[in-house]
Amino acid sequence: MKNSKPTILVVNDDGITAPGIKTLMDTMKEIGNVVVVAPDSPQSGMGHAITIGKPLRLDKVDIYEGVEMYKCSGTPVDCVKLAVNKIFKGKKPDLCVSGINHGLNNSINVLYSGTMSAAVEGAIESIPSIGFSLDDYTLEADFSHCVKYIRQIALQVLKNGLPGATLLNVNFPNTAAIKGIKICRQANAKWAEEFDERIDPHKRSYYWLTGVFQLNDHGEDTDVWALDNNYVSVVPVQFDLTAYQAMPILNSWDFNV
Amino acid sequence: MKNSKPTILVVNDDGITAPGIKTLMDTMKEIGNVVVVAPDSPQSGMGHAITIGKPLRLDKVDIYEGVEMYKCSGTPVDCVKLAVNKIFKGKKPDLCVSGINHGLNNSINVLYSGTMSAAVEGAIESIPSIGFSLDDYTLEADFSHCVKYIRQIALQVLKNGLPGATLLNVNFPNTAAIKGIKICRQANAKWAEEFDERIDPHKRSYYWLTGVFQLNDHGEDTDVWALDNNYVSVVPVQFDLTAYQAMPILNSWDFNV
Repeated sequence: MKNSKPTILVVNDDGITAPGIKTLMDTMKEIGNVVVVAPDSPQSGMGHAITIGKPLRLDKVDIYEGVEMYKCSGTPVDCVKLAVNKIFKGKKPDLCVSGINHGLNNSINVLYSGTMSAAVEGAIESIPSIGFSLDDYTLEADFSHCVKYIRQIALQVLKNGLPGATLLNVNFPNTAAIKGIKICRQANAKWAEEFDERIDPHKRSYYWLTGVFQLNDHGEDTDVWALDNNYVSVVPVQFDLTAYQAMPILNSWDFNV
Repeated sequence: MKNSKPTILVVNDDGITAPGIKTLMDTMKEIGNVVVVAPDSPQSGMGHAITIGKPLRLDKVDIYEGVEMYKCSGTPVDCVKLAVNKIFKGKKPDLCVSGINHGLNNSINVLYSGTMSAAVEGAIESIPSIGFSLDDYTLEADFSHCVKYIRQIALQVLKNGLPGATLLNVNFPNTAAIKGIKICRQANAKWAEEFDERIDPHKRSYYWLTGVFQLNDHGEDTDVWALDNNYVSVVPVQFDLTAYQAMPILNSWDFNV
């Protein structure tokens, strides 16, 4: 860590007024100089979406005293891109933290999560980045037991940096009885969709996306296991999606048949 | 491949009327029984977004003779989820192909691409899945030189299957003088954003997202290199994002300081 206070970009996907980002911002204010850039409306499930078909708004707001804050009309990834380009203007922050998400982003949820995609975008920009999420989907979620661990993890990342092209996916169980921090791998799981079909007043059908989380992994080294056993799960995440182990198999194929 | 004709799900992100999906559909009709499920409007840059805050529409349409087609109001990933759950109803297709995208999805673009995220979702559903993209961003793109290779790659995937939890990201150079197919890794690159700031009639500023592709990789085993040298690039893609190589480093940290 530098001698001067680090600059910390705080983002989320639940929107700038979500309680989760307030807790994260307050925790980061103890560590460094905070700039908040967050969507002006909830953006859950936006994954790594960016806005290309319409223009973006970025406006300075004055919600919490003494904090530089901006609301953005775009996705969580748009927020990071705008922050880097229009607010920091090339002088990158020392840390990018995203969340605290109202709801888990463990296992396969890393793909659908706007919270995590914002952190991925931070890492693509070579900013040490961390996404934080709590196993409570309500607006009334109590984040107080997360604060100590968020502080510990952020300080370690500021001190040590992160291995190249890697970020952290941190999830918290919804209990104050936390046993500690566990470094994990992403559990193998999927959502089994169950679309809820309804009929509108004009007699046309429509669907609500719902689903059941289907765990296909009984390892005790996964994020799902850690959370089930009251640990904070920390998964190092990469954005090189190459399945290197599959390359020799594909090279053995004859495409000319 | 089974003795009976395989069932093939065709999706995209440019929308159901895009020329690219017409070429892909026509190519797949020679191989199997095709079902098309595509967004009712362009969904480029939607990444792995899903629709959770509003309901979805899924309507059968009759655009091309003799093909079962549906338009969906949601994202490319929504299309795959609805297809699996409401159209195939658990009896999964033998293959899921996405595209042909009007524009490249090589390198880091795999993260932002709705085309590739639809294929990732197919793979999460354990359906052998392939995304196809052409280096031509116009609606007038000529896909004719891609057909032969799409057919070859699809037939190989139907014959051999794909390694577990892996899909293919296939990109085509915009030339008929193709040298062959190359199995590649995802090139290390990013977009350097250059937001185009404008003032609206009400004197408020807004931004258009633009950017320059910044290649930070001079390997000759990447998809960028292959495309630059007139090869079809095939990158095996995985959706376990765990950075396994970073785990020992994180395990050496002391969080209690």
